[in-house]
Amino acid sequence: MSDSFFAVVARQRACRSFSEQPVDDETIARILTAATFAPSAENKQPWEFVVVRDADTRAAIGDLSRRAWEARGRAFSETRLTPAMLADVDRGATGGVAEAPVNVVVCADVQRGLEATIPSSIFPATQNLLLAATALGLGSALTTITTGFRAEMQTILGLPDHVWPIALVPLGHPARPLGPPRRAPFSNRTHRDRYNHPW
Amino acid sequence: MSDSFFAVVARQRACRSFSEQPVDDETIARILTAATFAPSAENKQPWEFVVVRDADTRAAIGDLSRRAWEARGRAFSETRLTPAMLADVDRGATGGVAEAPVNVVVCADVQRGLEATIPSSIFPATQNLLLAATALGLGSALTTITTGFRAEMQTILGLPDHVWPIALVPLGHPARPLGPPRRAPFSNRTHRDRYNHPW
Repeated sequence: MSDSFFAVVARQRACRSFSEQPVDDETIARILTAATFAPSAENKQPWEFVVVRDADTRAAIGDLSRRAWEARGRAFSETRLTPAMLADVDRGATGGVAEAPVNVVVCADVQRGLEATIPSSIFPATQNLLLAATALGLGSALTTITTGFRAEMQTILGLPDHVWPIALVPLGHPARPLGPPRRAPFSNRTHRDRYNHPW
Repeated sequence: MSDSFFAVVARQRACRSFSEQPVDDETIARILTAATFAPSAENKQPWEFVVVRDADTRAAIGDLSRRAWEARGRAFSETRLTPAMLADVDRGATGGVAEAPVNVVVCADVQRGLEATIPSSIFPATQNLLLAATALGLGSALTTITTGFRAEMQTILGLPDHVWPIALVPLGHPARPLGPPRRAPFSNRTHRDRYNHPW
């Protein structure tokens, strides 16, 4: 697989089913180093990464993910997603995420970074993390279903009040090859100088 | 310059001073295509990109950026940034952004994507945009200072109510070479299984 920037970008896809093959510390180090090169407001780098391999902790995260999905996600998404996509997300939220050998919980320290700038500081770093995983042949996914259950995730991970879990990223080797991502052409979403002036 | 994924990630840096050298449509197309390969909640791809080259529109955006910085940003950041960094941001907000030959306003269509998932859908795409610009040797920066002035940006760009400007990204050739980014080592921000358990 090509390591060129544009090739990596073009093959990123959400993975929700993982093999048992482990991911070593050196690989995690490369991925998280890439994450830290993202921009952040005032260069405050407010991210904190909790890298979970412990089976009991992953099971607790998986249980939280399943409850969050059943309480808030599934009924809503049923009316918005295709049956195939719903089944994939459903499998991820009810077991696939916890099955991954590594769960990275990307957090924000709101004492270091201003609360208003957390999304613009944390999601670029998370995207670097996902792309770096893709570059190294790993599967990953950006999930935020547990974000509304902050206190429960803080309890699971021993996070202090000022460290907020923002995203949960499963990492591992894909159980099956991932297909290509499906996207509308950029020109459908691009405007020249002013909205609705075609590109 | 290397086109490998990790080399591109490691040289991304905010650029706030641009030469007059233009950026052609083909380059914009490559950058925005990369942006669309980011993940988004429910794969709704809620992004809309307004690519501004028109000088009057850029001047209006520059004026809004300057007013936003003077009203809300500068006084706050004075106590938080080093003098060199403050001067750089100050120059960007008061002229450098508008000087760039292209301003990309990254917007979210809140009819297509759920409001709660806008940050996790728009900032990964914006990060792809910034990385793609870096891969092609262009300077760029992630700015959100104008986000609190939604109605004014909507007027400048003719955006309907349901299309929200989220980030403003200047694009162009850097006026001077950019130095390397400054980051804390990932291990300072990484916890094994549980917060405060060292990596």
